[in-house]
Amino acid sequence: MAGLSARSVLVTGSNRGIGLELVRQLLGHPNPPQWIFATCRDPEGASAQELKNLASKHQSLVRVSLEVTNPASVKAAMARVTEHLKGAGLNLLINNAGIVRVTTLDSETPEDMSFVYTTNVIGPMLVSQAFLPLLKKAAQGSTQKGLSCNRAAIVNMSSSGGSITDVFAWDLGHVVSYRCSKAALNMLSRCQSLSYGADGILCLALHPGWVQTDMGNFNEDLSRAEDSVRGILNVLAVLSEKDNGTFLDWEGKTLPW
Amino acid sequence: MAGLSARSVLVTGSNRGIGLELVRQLLGHPNPPQWIFATCRDPEGASAQELKNLASKHQSLVRVSLEVTNPASVKAAMARVTEHLKGAGLNLLINNAGIVRVTTLDSETPEDMSFVYTTNVIGPMLVSQAFLPLLKKAAQGSTQKGLSCNRAAIVNMSSSGGSITDVFAWDLGHVVSYRCSKAALNMLSRCQSLSYGADGILCLALHPGWVQTDMGNFNEDLSRAEDSVRGILNVLAVLSEKDNGTFLDWEGKTLPW
Repeated sequence: MAGLSARSVLVTGSNRGIGLELVRQLLGHPNPPQWIFATCRDPEGASAQELKNLASKHQSLVRVSLEVTNPASVKAAMARVTEHLKGAGLNLLINNAGIVRVTTLDSETPEDMSFVYTTNVIGPMLVSQAFLPLLKKAAQGSTQKGLSCNRAAIVNMSSSGGSITDVFAWDLGHVVSYRCSKAALNMLSRCQSLSYGADGILCLALHPGWVQTDMGNFNEDLSRAEDSVRGILNVLAVLSEKDNGTFLDWEGKTLPW
Repeated sequence: MAGLSARSVLVTGSNRGIGLELVRQLLGHPNPPQWIFATCRDPEGASAQELKNLASKHQSLVRVSLEVTNPASVKAAMARVTEHLKGAGLNLLINNAGIVRVTTLDSETPEDMSFVYTTNVIGPMLVSQAFLPLLKKAAQGSTQKGLSCNRAAIVNMSSSGGSITDVFAWDLGHVVSYRCSKAALNMLSRCQSLSYGADGILCLALHPGWVQTDMGNFNEDLSRAEDSVRGILNVLAVLSEKDNGTFLDWEGKTLPW
């Protein structure tokens, strides 16, 4: 993580799992970001107690209420972050919030398909659109050339479950709504890379590994969130031009679409 | 098309464009299917006049009202088709109905994202779920072994615009909602192939070419619907086991996910 020196980072879905661990490890870094914006739906609720505890010890940690699927909430969060940044840009947006519904191909419903897509795809799209001006500002204001997470980046937390080429662990869980949403999120990441790369913003899809979190455990090869996030931060630190529009895992390995 | 001998075929979105042309060419075949179920939202409406004209000349053509995103409509359509089939199965389901919204990455809205996904992904999922018993019946009742469109198949009309590997003609049209929906439809097709293949049902995603229809013309290399459909029917005629879960174009070429 030595190389990751983004001055401002926003992590969605940061009250638990990988999001919370990202915040923890960013705070614990010897050279931490000046601002860490940790968003979740209800930062005052019981589900965000650990985040609250962290914020009481770290002034750089700003908890922000954000429901990624609600345009008004996204707009309000953007206004709060803008205020804190006092004219500076946002270096790193990590679209981490996501959900899964445990379903089979036959039991999948329109409601679950729609709900999962809205959270996992439309959410990241909306949040990226809203924070784009701040990301552009960071890219323009940076002394660095080329693309990097230290300059400006959108990292979409995808999943190897979204690989169409290699439909992973089908027998362990169909989760069609989830797989379809992650394939679509991969497409969104590619699309963002094509437009935003020219603005100096690196965009990619990242698979955090199959981590034991509240979200699910349908794989026998589970890693710990600490290990996953350590890997992720190492990977983010070294990303450059050539990684724009790619699909990488937490160890930096390229995954097939 | 000599080899395509499916006895019953259902085509969604068949009142215009590629769907209508599929119906026309199936009717015109020297050895046409016994039943062609041509579905659209409003078979009595002005937008389905050509289908109506065809039906007046061909008893094998059954027009069926079907709004693919409405579970009640899907159920009613399935009941009508079941009645016509008099105990036989359905050989070939072509999920052709689909929409596009002309948008840019920056102008894309949650409403369009959701609407396009619902029609292009949730629709085919719902229709496939509903007609699965009839497809299974066709597979079980067939004297043929292995997988083929003559025995039982689900063909999802996708698009090369859904290829994440090769984001086609980005500068001509972002259409992010469409691209995301087709990537997700490709994933659905792969998932269907993994479960339904064992039931004797071939499942795949098919790119019809960039055809000049009402739906759009954001490519300079347009083909005519007649040529596209002639190609599609030639391709369908020769599909087998090895094509289950693939992404092919109207000339039979494999496309990258």
